[in-house]
Amino acid sequence: MGNYGKEPPYYAVIFISTRTDSEDGYAEMASKMELLAGQQDGFLGFDSVRDKSGKGITISYWRDMEAINRWKLHVEHQHAQRLGREKWYESYRVQVCKLEREYECHNI
Amino acid sequence: MGNYGKEPPYYAVIFISTRTDSEDGYAEMASKMELLAGQQDGFLGFDSVRDKSGKGITISYWRDMEAINRWKLHVEHQHAQRLGREKWYESYRVQVCKLEREYECHNI
Repeated sequence: MGNYGKEPPYYAVIFISTRTDSEDGYAEMASKMELLAGQQDGFLGFDSVRDKSGKGITISYWRDMEAINRWKLHVEHQHAQRLGREKWYESYRVQVCKLEREYECHNI
Repeated sequence: MGNYGKEPPYYAVIFISTRTDSEDGYAEMASKMELLAGQQDGFLGFDSVRDKSGKGITISYWRDMEAINRWKLHVEHQHAQRLGREKWYESYRVQVCKLEREYECHNI
């Protein structure tokens, strides 16, 4: 069983970003989008890290491309994306991937 | 032209990890592996972020699966992987992906 209740193949959207200095509603919107994404059909989970320089990588996992495309076009998410470009991100890159295999190790 | 001099499709290896408290040679090995990976045929680039809690996401980009498999089996990298499991990582997850499309935005 994969990490998100699904065996590969499934899909990953890699979002690599650099924040501006503007806070202005960012944390609230990030929480809201996290919640909303979690309610979408086909959403499997996400992982996110941001360092103190403002560089971040967020990866969201999806069942299929249709779910990714629906989320990209979701009206509230479109609004958030526009504000992101205008206020919160200096730059970002989005990479859509088919996740073909995975494994993990834990200390025991 | 993609970010790493290559149009999709190419490949991404997502490495999501949690560090132990042990420093013991970690930074030196990380630098060494970064240099060595950069010398491998088919290596395209990488991105990495770690936050202050010790959680990190590193993504390396490769031309094809053959290059990924060769790097996984590289003798010096195998040694680093073993030390990583023994000393430096509490846990990690590796996901191998085919990167199918990408785009980026920059403030101007």
